[in-house]
This record gives sequence, structure tokens and C-alpha cells, in this order.
Amino acid sequence: METGRFVDLICQKRDGQELKREEIRSMIQNYVSGQIPDYQMSAMLMAIYFRGMSDREITEMTIAMRDSGDIVDLSQVSGIKVDKHSTGGVGDKTTLIIGPIVAACGIPVAKMSGRGLGFTGGTLDKLESIPGFRVELSEEEFFSSVKSIGISLIGQTGNLAPADKMLYALRDVTGTVPSIPLIASSIMSKKLAAGSDKILLDVTTGSGAFIKELEESRELARRMVAIGRGAGKETVAMITNMDEPLGYAIGNNLEVKEVIETLKGNGPEDLKEVCFALAGMMLSLGSEDESGKKTLSYEEGKKRAEEVLENGAAFAKFKELVQNQGGDITYIESPEKFPMAACCEEIRSDRDGYVNWMDTEGIGVAAGLLGAGREKKDSKIDYSAGIMMRQKIGNAVKKGDVIAVLYSEDKEKLKKASAYICDCFLVSDRLGKSMKMGVDILR
Amino acid sequence: METGRFVDLICQKRDGQELKREEIRSMIQNYVSGQIPDYQMSAMLMAIYFRGMSDREITEMTIAMRDSGDIVDLSQVSGIKVDKHSTGGVGDKTTLIIGPIVAACGIPVAKMSGRGLGFTGGTLDKLESIPGFRVELSEEEFFSSVKSIGISLIGQTGNLAPADKMLYALRDVTGTVPSIPLIASSIMSKKLAAGSDKILLDVTTGSGAFIKELEESRELARRMVAIGRGAGKETVAMITNMDEPLGYAIGNNLEVKEVIETLKGNGPEDLKEVCFALAGMMLSLGSEDESGKKTLSYEEGKKRAEEVLENGAAFAKFKELVQNQGGDITYIESPEKFPMAACCEEIRSDRDGYVNWMDTEGIGVAAGLLGAGREKKDSKIDYSAGIMMRQKIGNAVKKGDVIAVLYSEDKEKLKKASAYICDCFLVSDRLGKSMKMGVDILR
Repeated sequence: METGRFVDLICQKRDGQELKREEIRSMIQNYVSGQIPDYQMSAMLMAIYFRGMSDREITEMTIAMRDSGDIVDLSQVSGIKVDKHSTGGVGDKTTLIIGPIVAACGIPVAKMSGRGLGFTGGTLDKLESIPGFRVELSEEEFFSSVKSIGISLIGQTGNLAPADKMLYALRDVTGTVPSIPLIASSIMSKKLAAGSDKILLDVTTGSGAFIKELEESRELARRMVAIGRGAGKETVAMITNMDEPLGYAIGNNLEVKEVIETLKGNGPEDLKEVCFALAGMMLSLGSEDESGKKTLSYEEGKKRAEEVLENGAAFAKFKELVQNQGGDITYIESPEKFPMAACCEEIRSDRDGYVNWMDTEGIGVAAGLLGAGREKKDSKIDYSAGIMMRQKIGNAVKKGDVIAVLYSEDKEKLKKASAYICDCFLVSDRLGKSMKMGVDILR
Repeated sequence: METGRFVDLICQKRDGQELKREEIRSMIQNYVSGQIPDYQMSAMLMAIYFRGMSDREITEMTIAMRDSGDIVDLSQVSGIKVDKHSTGGVGDKTTLIIGPIVAACGIPVAKMSGRGLGFTGGTLDKLESIPGFRVELSEEEFFSSVKSIGISLIGQTGNLAPADKMLYALRDVTGTVPSIPLIASSIMSKKLAAGSDKILLDVTTGSGAFIKELEESRELARRMVAIGRGAGKETVAMITNMDEPLGYAIGNNLEVKEVIETLKGNGPEDLKEVCFALAGMMLSLGSEDESGKKTLSYEEGKKRAEEVLENGAAFAKFKELVQNQGGDITYIESPEKFPMAACCEEIRSDRDGYVNWMDTEGIGVAAGLLGAGREKKDSKIDYSAGIMMRQKIGNAVKKGDVIAVLYSEDKEKLKKASAYICDCFLVSDRLGKSMKMGVDILR
């Protein structure tokens, strides 16, 4: 494509025509190389916002984005590598639970996570809240860990999908973030570059998810599965509820403590349900024999996951993981050793009634105000900061009952967060229609 | 407005919300000053393409664009100044006819024209094809000309609506040109800055116009009238037919010769009809007494225009204009003195039938290929290049009848243009429904 005529491509998309494979490839390549300027790409992105993209278009765009940088080579790890990715939520600590479960069942877990910004820390931050835990392993250490104990969780090395980084930065300032095909291709370009054999997507939906409407979440899931399949990788999506925080703990070491409880068999029901579903699906996906046939169904996988949780094998694997990456195992054995925040405040209900609704994203913002996340790339995280929820949607509460407890090192932050979080709960006379949902599978 | 949050404004427009007056003003000011980058503005323009703008929004945007540069001060010229602007077409030489007609009726004509790119030359180029004619007068010369003979046509001085120049350049490369509100504000920002008291818009429609569909042309006219009124200037639009070239001549000195014939009373009917209509409306608009009442109706204005054409006053005024600005009057008196192009070629009908349709824009492109316009700002124009049409839509032709004659200094150009123009005429067995239309008035 002559780059001078990129405007013709913008006009085609603007008028609702489908772009050709070579046009899409050139677009991404020429954007990354700087031949297509930002001002043309942003007009294209806005045209895509309004006109959408077909599955074919978005698959080709995602493949071109994948090919813009490094592709992780996990071929040293034998067996079928299944990557799990969540579209994000509040209190989402599933990776720390599922990883050990799956590894305990003999499926290799070789996971590299990116370090994003966010209200609360990511998987890497949660792991780093365990004193001594090292997420920056060399490639050699990473692979030898997976070989010896079957699991390693580290920070991303290499330059994965730089086209996505550029496009996301542009979308962020041009009002083109909330486009389902663009979100799908952004996520999948990184997942396709991450080197796994299969991809399991945890698409959250509800007030704490990036996508809040169930129908839109389903559409996002459907688009991502289509992209994965179009790029030649089996991809399954599970839609999970994020209308309230997952479990009770929000914040780095608070969540690690809840992970430990869960791995000991005492976790919150909603968290366990999601973890068994995701782990069960990962086990099924990883159970392919040489002929490509699954030897384990999803239901059987779920059962296996429950077994290794109940018999302690998953918890043992978690301890192995911590020890192997330099973490102080005594914290895992005695979670009360984790430092508590200096200040705390209880948020109480101002009336009798039922907990009917939560602004879960708002609760995440409050956790951020407490110091649990990073605003900028180099912000320091307060590992003990966060929120312990005391209620779930549907609970009956009396006036004065505690709904949540806020923790922070800093009184000022506590003040700001408690002022903010007040509007994040709705207690009303009658119980609304239950927002509870099971796990919805798309493949 | 905090410029860092311009993205919020993009999102508002994207979601179909109306922007506030101060938001629009800041947008234009901050874009001109460089605080809003092109990549954000192009996303905004694409959102406007899809969502449109209300009359209030587009009026406020146009006023902000007008205020981004110089505003011409015509207060030295006494009387009511009426500016006429055409949205462009092929063979459009109306300014050279209307100007002398209106001036001959005692309404001052103080017109500054911009020098655009185009298939064929603009008003300034046509005037410059008269040997000696100077369009670059000083301000002093310009005003003294208007005072002494009632008319002066010169090139634009000053920096009118620089915001429009910047926005148009961006729209041109981002697929956001064909948006009615953006087109309306682009035209009107310059017209409002041009210093006249009233604005008459000649909105062309048809295969040779920028806007080809009648309904869209009407919408463009309606929007421009709303902007003019919103900015406090009486504005009238007339919709005129551009389904075929206006008159027969296309190209600079060919058109001047047709202007001379018309001013002598021998012009083509369609050209005369449009000129009388536009001149009649200008005369009516300019006839306001101190109380703001029109002393001349449109119909009366048209009659006056016909009178000064028939009694020779308009032609005399044209000669005065030419002489006053240094043009060689002997060319006007003996138009055969204008140099003829070295080469010419006749385009003939390959069948019997009726001329049913013309690709008038294509005919304009062919004139450009012959050398009649400029591709780049510094291209040299061949004043004798162009096309003399021999047929109008609806004419019956026999196989071999001449449809058009092409003129150029360059044989190669002639070859290219004649190959191009072949597909620009449709001769068929039966006469289609007539595309002829009267002049439609919007005020």
C-alpha cells in the first residue's frame, strides 16, 4: 500500500467497507514504523469505533499486531501450555490460586505477566508482597523452575506486541478505548505473542469490570474466541461475575492471605467457584493426547481441581512456588506475620435492609486511594493497604453493621477513601433481583 | 477548558452529546495555538462526521474560526456590501458578469477572492488571462477603485480564518472532508471574515458540484444560512444546477470571451438565467434603506439586472474595471485578440441519440489535464487551454456531431484529456427525465 493513500483506507472504513488482509497488515506495519502519522490513525480508530470490524478484519489486525514484536518461545517446556487471562476486576486473585491447582495436576504453568497500572496491584505486585519473592527471573531460571516444580510466575521479558502499546496510548487520548473489536484485538495480540498453546479468557462482567453490560461482555468474549481460532490457537472464554469484588479481600497482602485461606480449603464460595471453573477448563484444555483428543472433560477438570485443593496438593505447590522464587515461606505458613496497616476504618450501613448493589469499580478506586495500586509507572505500592469486604450482595444488614474495613498506612488517604467509598453501596428495603450468575462458557 | 481533558470532549461528541459554547471556542483556540494535537482533532472531526453538529454548535464553531485571524474592514466603502460566494463548479464565470451588473446598478462591489487549487482557474486567474490585469492591488488602490468606479476585484490580503486552513488540511488527509456541517463552517468562517454586510451563497448541485445530491445541497445551504444568521449577518442561499457546465466555455480566456459575449447580451441561456438570479438577489439584499427595509424585491432586482445588461451599462462597467486595474482594454473590445491554443481536438458522438447525462466533474478534470488549472500552488496556468462545449443536456445529436472541442498548448495533454473525457457524456436513445431545474432560494 502506498502510504500516501492511507486516507483512502480511512474513507473505506468510514463508509462501512471491509478492509483487505494486505491493507490491514500494511496499516499496522506502517503505523509502527512511523510512516502513518498518529493523526491519520486516530481518525481510522474513530471510524472503526463507529463502523466496527468483521471477525476477519479484526483477526488480521490482531495477527499483524502480534507480529510487530517478540513472540515468546515456550517450546522448552514440554506438555500443553495453557494461558489464562482475565479482563480485570476488583479482588481478582485467581491466578495465584489456579496456577498451583493446575501445576499440582501436572499441567505446566509458565506464565509471564505484564505490569499494568491499576487501582490495585496486579499478580506480580501481589507476589512481591510476600517478602523475598522475586518475579524478575532470568529466562534460564524461569524454564528450570517450570521443569523442576511445574510452575513459575514472572514478569514479562521481551517486547510483546509494540503495535498494541502504540495503539492503546493513542486510543487513550482520542476517545477510542471503548470499542469491542479494538479491545478484543488489544488483549489477543498480547496473548498470541505470549507463546502458549491454548488460551483461556476470563471475561469479567458487571460494575467492577472494564465492560459492565453482560451482552457486551459476551460480544467481547465471542470476538476474542474468533480471533484466537482465526490465528490457529484453541481459545475458550468464560464469562464471570464482577458485580461485586471477588472474595472479600482487595489489596496486595490482604489478597495473598485470602489466597492462602482458599488453598487451605477455607476460601469464600464465589472465589472458589470461579477458580474451580477456570482451573477445570485449563485442565481440560491441557489434557489433549497426541491425536488432539481431550482426555479430560471440563466437568472432570473441575473435579480434579477440587480434589487437589482438598487434599492439600495445591497449597503444597503454592509453597513450592514461593520457596523456589525466593519468597519467605514462613509468611505462607503463618499469614499473621504479614504486616498490618497502621490505620483502619470501618464503613457501616446507615440503615436496615439488604445489600442490593455495589459500585465495584468505585470500590477499586477507593483501594487505589488507600495506596494499594500505582497511579504512575514508578509509584510505590503500600502492600498492606486495601479493603476487607464484610458483605456480599443479597446479605441482610442492620443499621451499624460493618460493610467494609479500609486499611492504609496514611490517615489522609484513609479519610479520602472512606469519603469516596460511601456511595459505593446500596442498601434498600427489598432484595432486588439477584445479580448472581453462574460461569458462562464460550468456545 | 483544561486542554489535557480534550479527550472528554471527544467522548461527548462521540456519544452524541451537544458541545457547549465555551468548549467549542476553546477547542478552536487551543487547536490553532497548538495545545490540542492533530491526532486528537482528527478523532474529533471523525466523531463529528458520524454524529453531526447542531446549528448552534456549528455556528459557534464557525464564529470561533472566523475570530482566529484577520477580519476584513470594508467600512471605508459606503453603502451595503453584499458578498457572493459559489460552492464551485465547472465553467462558473458568474462573478465576472454579476460584479459589473451589480456595480452598474450602483451597489458597491468590493470583492477579495482567494486563490484555490482546482481543475480550472478561479476568478483571479480568469482576470489575469486578460493581458495586464492586476489582481494584486494595495489596500489603498482597492478602496479608491471601489470609490471611483464602484467595483474592484482583487486577491485576498490578510490571514483570513487560519483555523479553517489548519482544519481543512487535516480533514483532507483524515477522510473527514465530506461532512455537511464541517463544509458549511469552513465556507462560512471565511465569508464572515471577509467583511461584507450580507452574504449571498450560490450552492451548486449536480455532477459538477462538490455536493452532487440535491437534498444534500439543500442541507448545506440550510446550514450555511443558519450560521450566517446566527453570526448576525443576513445570508441567502440559491441552489443552482451544475449537472452540466455553466454556459459553454471552460478555461480561463475561453471563459472571459464568453463573459464578454454575455455582457453584450449574447450569452448562453443557462448562464444568463443564473446571473440574473444571483445579481437580482444581490441588488435586493443591497437595497436596504436606513430603517432596514428592502426597497427592491428579488423580482425587481432581476429586472434591473436584465436592464443594465441590455442597455450596455454592465459591459461598460466591465471595461471600466479592466482598464482601472491595468488590463488591456483592446482585448475586451476585440476578443479575437486573445491567443488561441496551438492544438485542438473535437470530441464527437459515436451514435445518434439524446445527450442524457454528463460527468461534469470529469469534464472539469479533463480541463485540468489540458492545463487550464493548477495542481500545485506554484503551477503555471495555460490561459488558452480548456474546453468549448457544443451540446447541452437534452440536445438531439447525430453520430459524428461535435460534443466538445478541447484546446491545449501541448499535444500530449490533449491526448490524455481526450482519452479521459470520452466517458464523460452519455448519449442514449430516449430522452431521460430532464435534470433542468430553476434556481431554488433559501433564506
